[in-house]
Amino acid sequence: MTEIVKGDLLYTGKAKEMYATNDPDVLWVDYLDQATALNGKKKVAIDQKGLLNAHISSLIFTDLAQHGIKNHFIEQLSDRVQLVRRVKMIPLETVVRNAASGSFERKFAVDHLMKFDEPVLEFFYKSDALDDPFINDSQVAALKVASAETVAEMKRQALLVNDRLQAIFAEMGVQLVDFKIEFGLTDEGQVLLADEISPDSCRLVDEKTQKSLDKDVFRKDLGDLTTVYKEVLQRLATVEGSQQ
Amino acid sequence: MTEIVKGDLLYTGKAKEMYATNDPDVLWVDYLDQATALNGKKKVAIDQKGLLNAHISSLIFTDLAQHGIKNHFIEQLSDRVQLVRRVKMIPLETVVRNAASGSFERKFAVDHLMKFDEPVLEFFYKSDALDDPFINDSQVAALKVASAETVAEMKRQALLVNDRLQAIFAEMGVQLVDFKIEFGLTDEGQVLLADEISPDSCRLVDEKTQKSLDKDVFRKDLGDLTTVYKEVLQRLATVEGSQQ
Repeated sequence: MTEIVKGDLLYTGKAKEMYATNDPDVLWVDYLDQATALNGKKKVAIDQKGLLNAHISSLIFTDLAQHGIKNHFIEQLSDRVQLVRRVKMIPLETVVRNAASGSFERKFAVDHLMKFDEPVLEFFYKSDALDDPFINDSQVAALKVASAETVAEMKRQALLVNDRLQAIFAEMGVQLVDFKIEFGLTDEGQVLLADEISPDSCRLVDEKTQKSLDKDVFRKDLGDLTTVYKEVLQRLATVEGSQQ
Repeated sequence: MTEIVKGDLLYTGKAKEMYATNDPDVLWVDYLDQATALNGKKKVAIDQKGLLNAHISSLIFTDLAQHGIKNHFIEQLSDRVQLVRRVKMIPLETVVRNAASGSFERKFAVDHLMKFDEPVLEFFYKSDALDDPFINDSQVAALKVASAETVAEMKRQALLVNDRLQAIFAEMGVQLVDFKIEFGLTDEGQVLLADEISPDSCRLVDEKTQKSLDKDVFRKDLGDLTTVYKEVLQRLATVEGSQQ
């Protein structure tokens, strides 16, 4: 692979910046030391968060690839920089829930962390103007957001990701309550897992202490986020290291 | 059939009262001369509305049965009274949309009456306490609201109802924008169309004048509801009469 050179800024997310590179198939991702909540209304600088999320996400994407779940991750270049494969992002957030929390708990007034017999799958339509509305398969089709085949493949992969993530986190003594992932389409039309998987996008609960090990620490002001994310990275590195 | 005698009040809806009868398989429905909107916050008496909806719903259910879509309707006893088969109601409102309006238009900021290539199907979980939230198939399963088989059968029947209703209303010079139906389960576990189909539960637009011919007249104070519902009943009776 020729040396990758960082190009133009393409997109600024809540805690990441995506850049073009000299390779049209490769994007450069800078993980930022910041956090947002309430759809961006709450935003603060957080020491080391970019570094921690980049390392956590790299470890998880590497593990998933080793377990047959292809994804956009290519390599981690430095503490806050990943190279990833360029895909056309599908404007849907895919949420997988193993227990009730957050919007599900509020909407249906069920017990906190009520376990589901089967994982719950939800899609949210990514649109800042519309405030990312909850959307069903029929509406996805009507609005031509994604084809029925793409939606079916997203669901299939989301459940595989859930199976593997649950296994990883169980080894870490952590309950995976729910998580959000995003997919893109390759030039060949293949559905490919993209974005990031980190405590920013997962709801994690320590199995012993029942304490949150995710962005809820920030959303609900439950303590120091850096300390918590460090704990997650340390446990994850131990688990992943033991598998080499 | 032995003579049916009205029994205890079982349920009061927004514009109907359901009573038991001396036959355990039969319910007595009183259609009320009242209308509500905004989930019951707006409620007024409306002359003849019960009579008009009872007649409209009876004509439509009879037509559907003649076209192979079984439903709970047995007979109309008097101007505001129907006898219907008792079923265990499934707590889901099934909405079928042929064009964008109402909550869909607001949620996705699309053009009013934008037509869909295929009908859009939506479920809402009937719960006054939760304000009837929009729910997807996965959540229906997780909350054990209905089995996957029941949901599939509801969708199948909803699309058949849509096909036939579109044909009826087209003959009346009316566009069927969307409608809401409800289903119940028989003792044998069969999914059976129930509740009512009337301008209270359909969004109807006159093809020539583009005027609303449904409860939006009341919701949006667009004119006299009784006059509009009479117009719907008159056109429907003409269409159905010509089919005898």
